[in-house]
Amino acid sequence: MRSEQPSEVVSVACAQLAPVLGDVDRNRARAAAAIEHAAARGARLVVLPELCISGYAFADRVEARRLAEPADGPTAQAWSELARRHELVIVGGICELDDEGAVRNSAVLIDASGLLAVYRKTHLWDREQLIFAAGEEPPRVLDTEAGRVGIAICYDAFFPEVMRGLALEGADVIAVPTNSPLLAPPTQPLSVEVVLAIASAHVNSVFVAQADRSGHERGIDWAQASAIVDPGGTLLAGPVDGASVLVAECDLASARDKALGARNDVLADRRPELYLEAFRSTPTTKETVS
Amino acid sequence: MRSEQPSEVVSVACAQLAPVLGDVDRNRARAAAAIEHAAARGARLVVLPELCISGYAFADRVEARRLAEPADGPTAQAWSELARRHELVIVGGICELDDEGAVRNSAVLIDASGLLAVYRKTHLWDREQLIFAAGEEPPRVLDTEAGRVGIAICYDAFFPEVMRGLALEGADVIAVPTNSPLLAPPTQPLSVEVVLAIASAHVNSVFVAQADRSGHERGIDWAQASAIVDPGGTLLAGPVDGASVLVAECDLASARDKALGARNDVLADRRPELYLEAFRSTPTTKETVS
Repeated sequence: MRSEQPSEVVSVACAQLAPVLGDVDRNRARAAAAIEHAAARGARLVVLPELCISGYAFADRVEARRLAEPADGPTAQAWSELARRHELVIVGGICELDDEGAVRNSAVLIDASGLLAVYRKTHLWDREQLIFAAGEEPPRVLDTEAGRVGIAICYDAFFPEVMRGLALEGADVIAVPTNSPLLAPPTQPLSVEVVLAIASAHVNSVFVAQADRSGHERGIDWAQASAIVDPGGTLLAGPVDGASVLVAECDLASARDKALGARNDVLADRRPELYLEAFRSTPTTKETVS
Repeated sequence: MRSEQPSEVVSVACAQLAPVLGDVDRNRARAAAAIEHAAARGARLVVLPELCISGYAFADRVEARRLAEPADGPTAQAWSELARRHELVIVGGICELDDEGAVRNSAVLIDASGLLAVYRKTHLWDREQLIFAAGEEPPRVLDTEAGRVGIAICYDAFFPEVMRGLALEGADVIAVPTNSPLLAPPTQPLSVEVVLAIASAHVNSVFVAQADRSGHERGIDWAQASAIVDPGGTLLAGPVDGASVLVAECDLASARDKALGARNDVLADRRPELYLEAFRSTPTTKETVS
């Protein structure tokens, strides 16, 4: 069923880090060590958590601004050097100070040539709304040496529209830099954040590479929901407790062939003529369709 | 967070049945016994599997046609009588012979007044494409005495557009009559069919009531993925092995308030202006957005 596409195996890593809020230099060193470790294990695509250099739980906008950096700032420069040295593609989250002076929750995509793209989180979770300016551009897919990489940040991935959109634009792998606060003790064998990664991978027949936080920060524990999931919805790696680098071999061909069994295709089987009205309608619609 | 809506607790049942292909009279008796059992446990909404009167693995269109019945045929009549006797709302799958003579994989929605609605499966799985005419109307939401009930059938629920559309139309509970063939032995603590039910419930803040098959049929085993999931993504009941009736108390208020924490709302946080192009585009799009 998945045999028509030429095999293209890429080793993908997700670094679950435990940065310390405000300790930018050491957080950058922690990220670099994880990238080196992933490279030593053969990784070509390395995904790091959301806001992994600054930390997450900012007291206010002033603190976030003080810890922000330009998209092409010191983190991008450090990651570009690592990408050159190890032939890597790197996706990770930074606290961005943009050209207009707005503070953004962003992910940068970097390869040996430097900064390829910046994505600014479009769905802000909870107090992020008090801190960051939301992105105005949709999540995107970039052609890289490690395949076609889509980017979504944490709560973005709770919107099936985002993950479907990236799949429709041809993503092989959706990289999801994440900081998932642990809202309640887990009551099921898989946390909801891991469940969503599996569901998104399966319904879109894409790889999902989610890099979450560990550690503690201003009273917050983390779901530690790092996971690498294949297009069939199988967990290849993760979740894991503590700071750790997950690595999995991903054959991108299995994301490029959307066939499901002998007669189905997860994208071609869509019936957009039946969905569009529903997707256009607003949540306030209360009319019964009958 | 979920305190503004008046509480409205409805007991929901999912009957995991083991019908025998072609044994229509006894399958109807099995369904009736499950409905009586659910009513005795206090259920007001009862969901039954896909094609639960005819069986599933038809050899061909001729066999399916022989086992088909009109939407208002003997099954609807039997369920209407049970709905009247026990004040129930019933959703279940039948092999429908429609007014034009086409055979459909349908779900009927029935209350004490009789047949309220017929939904014809719009996404056909595998050999169903050789047997059934696909539905031309989107899945729908109906106002009932047991809340606002959306309907999707099995593979329909693999399309996030379907589940999101039903949530946007105001569903409290999405009833999912299902027959999930077991494609491979489960390798994870939750099967992908249960994962999808949890993900759909969580991202849409709705109840999902999925009624699957058990038993064996012409070489097919079943995933037995019956589950009742709350709007937070918590499994209230299921999955379960063998023929069984799951029952759970569902406070519909928790599906009507879409708040997630203090500052978020799973529907209002959508950014449709960023999605529409992606949702309109076809799976053949290969342009990189960058």
